[in-house]
Amino acid sequence: MDVNTIKDPAFIKDCSRRELQELAGDIRNFLIEQLSVTGGHLGPNLGVVELTLTLHALYQSPKDKLVWDVGHQTYVHKVLTGRAPYFDTLRKYQGLCGFPKRNESIHDIWETGHASTSLSAAMGMAAARDIKGTDEQVAAIIGDGALTGGMALEALNNIGHQQTNMTIILNDNEMSIAPNVGALHSILGRLRTMGRYQKVKDDLEYLIKKIPAFGGRLASTAERLKDSLKYLLVSGMFFEELGFTYLGPVDGHDFDDLNSNIKYARDTNGPVIVHVLTKKGKGYGPAENDAKGTWHGLGPYKIESGEVVKKPGPPAYSAVFSSTLQRIASEDTRVVALTAAMPGGTKLDQFGEAFPDRMFDVGIAEQHAVTMAGGLATQGMKPVFAVYSTFLQRGYDQLVHDICRQNLNVFFGIDRAGLVGADGETHQGVFDIAYLRSLPNMKILMPKDENELQHMIYTAYRWDDGPIAVRYPRGNGYGVSMDDELKQLEIGRWETLREGKDAVILSFGTMLPAASKAAEQLAEENISVRVVNACSAKPLDNDMLIQIYEEDIPVLTLEEAALKGSFGSAVLEHVHDHGHHGMIVERMGVPDWYIEHGSVPELYEEIGLTAEEVQKKVRALLPQKQKRA
Amino acid sequence: MDVNTIKDPAFIKDCSRRELQELAGDIRNFLIEQLSVTGGHLGPNLGVVELTLTLHALYQSPKDKLVWDVGHQTYVHKVLTGRAPYFDTLRKYQGLCGFPKRNESIHDIWETGHASTSLSAAMGMAAARDIKGTDEQVAAIIGDGALTGGMALEALNNIGHQQTNMTIILNDNEMSIAPNVGALHSILGRLRTMGRYQKVKDDLEYLIKKIPAFGGRLASTAERLKDSLKYLLVSGMFFEELGFTYLGPVDGHDFDDLNSNIKYARDTNGPVIVHVLTKKGKGYGPAENDAKGTWHGLGPYKIESGEVVKKPGPPAYSAVFSSTLQRIASEDTRVVALTAAMPGGTKLDQFGEAFPDRMFDVGIAEQHAVTMAGGLATQGMKPVFAVYSTFLQRGYDQLVHDICRQNLNVFFGIDRAGLVGADGETHQGVFDIAYLRSLPNMKILMPKDENELQHMIYTAYRWDDGPIAVRYPRGNGYGVSMDDELKQLEIGRWETLREGKDAVILSFGTMLPAASKAAEQLAEENISVRVVNACSAKPLDNDMLIQIYEEDIPVLTLEEAALKGSFGSAVLEHVHDHGHHGMIVERMGVPDWYIEHGSVPELYEEIGLTAEEVQKKVRALLPQKQKRA
Repeated sequence: MDVNTIKDPAFIKDCSRRELQELAGDIRNFLIEQLSVTGGHLGPNLGVVELTLTLHALYQSPKDKLVWDVGHQTYVHKVLTGRAPYFDTLRKYQGLCGFPKRNESIHDIWETGHASTSLSAAMGMAAARDIKGTDEQVAAIIGDGALTGGMALEALNNIGHQQTNMTIILNDNEMSIAPNVGALHSILGRLRTMGRYQKVKDDLEYLIKKIPAFGGRLASTAERLKDSLKYLLVSGMFFEELGFTYLGPVDGHDFDDLNSNIKYARDTNGPVIVHVLTKKGKGYGPAENDAKGTWHGLGPYKIESGEVVKKPGPPAYSAVFSSTLQRIASEDTRVVALTAAMPGGTKLDQFGEAFPDRMFDVGIAEQHAVTMAGGLATQGMKPVFAVYSTFLQRGYDQLVHDICRQNLNVFFGIDRAGLVGADGETHQGVFDIAYLRSLPNMKILMPKDENELQHMIYTAYRWDDGPIAVRYPRGNGYGVSMDDELKQLEIGRWETLREGKDAVILSFGTMLPAASKAAEQLAEENISVRVVNACSAKPLDNDMLIQIYEEDIPVLTLEEAALKGSFGSAVLEHVHDHGHHGMIVERMGVPDWYIEHGSVPELYEEIGLTAEEVQKKVRALLPQKQKRA
Repeated sequence: MDVNTIKDPAFIKDCSRRELQELAGDIRNFLIEQLSVTGGHLGPNLGVVELTLTLHALYQSPKDKLVWDVGHQTYVHKVLTGRAPYFDTLRKYQGLCGFPKRNESIHDIWETGHASTSLSAAMGMAAARDIKGTDEQVAAIIGDGALTGGMALEALNNIGHQQTNMTIILNDNEMSIAPNVGALHSILGRLRTMGRYQKVKDDLEYLIKKIPAFGGRLASTAERLKDSLKYLLVSGMFFEELGFTYLGPVDGHDFDDLNSNIKYARDTNGPVIVHVLTKKGKGYGPAENDAKGTWHGLGPYKIESGEVVKKPGPPAYSAVFSSTLQRIASEDTRVVALTAAMPGGTKLDQFGEAFPDRMFDVGIAEQHAVTMAGGLATQGMKPVFAVYSTFLQRGYDQLVHDICRQNLNVFFGIDRAGLVGADGETHQGVFDIAYLRSLPNMKILMPKDENELQHMIYTAYRWDDGPIAVRYPRGNGYGVSMDDELKQLEIGRWETLREGKDAVILSFGTMLPAASKAAEQLAEENISVRVVNACSAKPLDNDMLIQIYEEDIPVLTLEEAALKGSFGSAVLEHVHDHGHHGMIVERMGVPDWYIEHGSVPELYEEIGLTAEEVQKKVRALLPQKQKRA
């Protein structure tokens, strides 16, 4: 059928198995075609076509609650809830979101983006139902990778204890964003290879009844029995001991198997786990045979060849980060890298190939990663945790309580700092300066380009008086020439990029081009604007600020970070703490709302972080100065 | 022996079992006596006397690494490492810290305060050892309650996978701070009742060999066998499946049992869990028979009678919070309360007695609690999460990503906001305004007294446009009279407590008395100071601020929160965003370092948050105004 005609998922209940299979094919073709143009999370969605269809057949959305963990696997759900016609706008400005979005559909009842939140949210919904005495069903769909997140384990523990009536669909696709790590994964791995629980159980019971009645073979049979029983008990045991009924493993591409198990789970009282095995990329060769995780989320590709369309360009900041770290690590065995399930995104996979013993992928476990880095630091190592700004939020208490409080030498490589574009509001890295700079002992740097990045990495590596963060944006550098030798920069020392006497723009990182362009254009109006690369957000450059106060020159701070509490606020604090109450200081940054998806330049336009707006702001500063003078 | 003579734990290795037993008794008597005067965490420490002695006998501290989770159970360790003579200063200003402290002793290698961090830290230390190729041993000591924290589960998972060579002592005392919750705890409960693992295993193997060779009784015996085996396998299973060798349960007050198991664990390769059963309060009747957790941490008490010395006083803020919530909940079944293992501290235990179906103690699991509250909110409930400011740090990402981003109606009762006193730097609640106010949609209130608190609770309950936080301090109110009727306050509306025209102090909560006192004293110098109860830190009172700008009166902000990024910074942002660059604004608050333990008034002195300092600051503002005019 033409999936563009689907308005509502209710019709799925009436589909025959044959119709479902056809529909699954149609959806796969639709996604493969659409995403070849727009890009997006192809692999995860091809893996859950049958599962999503089955869920919509068995649950009555939105009365029943389907809560999707992470949410990048909801494209099929979006198609089934009337959004196929909008797929050409996927992850584009004001277009369809790549994650569940409550304002898109009544069927999106919970928004996600980060992993491991679904169980807690679903338990809240089920608890509300039980207090109200209503009868809606609640199901959460969570991947095996997300299950290593402490938050999901907390919820699992609590749901088991409360015996909350809900179903957890464990979508075990053998490969979350990166190959999974952790002991939980090896348990799942064992389940995966052992066949159906019920079948093994039946076989064993048969075996028990057949135990030979003579002595010679007894011990060995009993031994075998013990092993088999152990194997048997392992399967459900882990979850059953936590208080769940365990069903599975279920073939996630077999409608009958899915239907019977999920239906049974739905109708069973108390918490049930249905362990569903799916294959990422199912039905599209290149994505099925994807060892490196390329097809998890990607840009446009050629359908026939499976060739991913790559734009040539300067090296990505992440790549410069990883290669510089590798260079340093080759001369200092104390350097240890950590990632929380993002070896590909952070490019630490390359570091890990070079130094397998000094690279730890701890799984989706940012809290653990932060504090483990702290433990390494106490023993004189040089731990580096490379983590997206948005995901470091998970380790906030560990930063406060373990790292900053003990002033440990941990180096945070904060990737995807600032606006991230297509992933949208759950992933924008705009809060880190605010949440880091209020913590004692923390240092925060951001480079103006990839060459400065390599020097900052070296500088952070050499720093030995507590935690230090180097934040860098998503995407590629500018292609500037890279110095051969790594330099140690002075922390808390800014750089004047352009001289000027009428106003000064204090900015850093990705906003410097706008600042420079604005200064150039204002020069044509005979307004002389100084541009400073304020590359250290904490500490500020005390000397330069005092110089500016002496000149009594209007200041504009400009940053790609939350206006409330970030760099600009730090400058205001400095101004007033130093008694220069008369200084004119204006701030530009990310406003006090969540910024949705779109290309970064579009988002800059939306929130006014452009050279044009900078010019306006600077012009507006000048009359004030004259008026005051 | 006189424990005051102990300088170093090395002598313990040479003690006979009899000497150890005597020493254990001496340490218990010492602690019972000392703590009867100073107060402190008596119960947990009486529970680990034999365990701590055994650890110091088997490990060579500080070469070997002993990492204590939470850390309030390290008094015995402190006694054994030469700190008995300082116990009269325990938890007092500049005295002995109630937690491990690196600057107190070379034997304190990792500082704690919050739960669930020890496994990650210890894994980092073990990883460092393995990279360096050295041979020190690493052991973490963690309670059964702390094991429900997601962070500990993340670490457990990762350690099992990495097969890190380290020992985890699971100190299972049946009762963490509150009776434990969660499925993990029921597994531990089952282990607790099943006797020694090894013994059961031996018995079963014997049984297997004896399986009767005739038909009639076979099936039932096999059934029994299966059940027993299941029981057997459950025990170690949970941990063994995660990749650990499991030893135990061990009698935590039997030196022989402790010694043989922990020694075996120490000498076993890979990760080992030793499951040790201890009794909180062991050896002191009143603390042993402690159903309510009174003896976990407490003030002075009378040794003979076990009577806790209580100072009569006005109701605690926590009590007002819980009783007001109870009053509201009795009229609205949508009100649901959540706590993360702090039903006693937050006084929600009383709420839970009244409304058992609408109270959730989720265990040490703040992340889960925050998002579960979000799930409840999506279904039209009125969830209230009562949590200490310092522990809400654990749920920061959930605040950013789940609650504020989706603008869900979750009410946060932020207890212990501001300086907490004796618990010290790990527990000070000084960062919450900074980390909350940079999040879109969040509202932040703080009352001036317990009467305003009850109205704020009602106001937050009535609020239906997203998340709202009401923060309140540790300790008692002022004994002000309580209005009978609950009032709905206008959010973002401040209150002038005292008129004045020369300067205005914007303050809130616990700092208002100092502000008022300073204003009174300045009045005697003919300086007229306005005092404003700036009870809403977000949003600010826009109208009042604009009024102040029009008057062009110097402003002093005064708060018991981090100077970097909190309320004062919000005022600075407002001033400059509104173009009033000439305004004189000074800020007082908590400086950019971690504040150690001591009584709150002593800490106020240390960091200059006193009426005297406020006076000085105000006086200093005035000439500036004259100079500028």
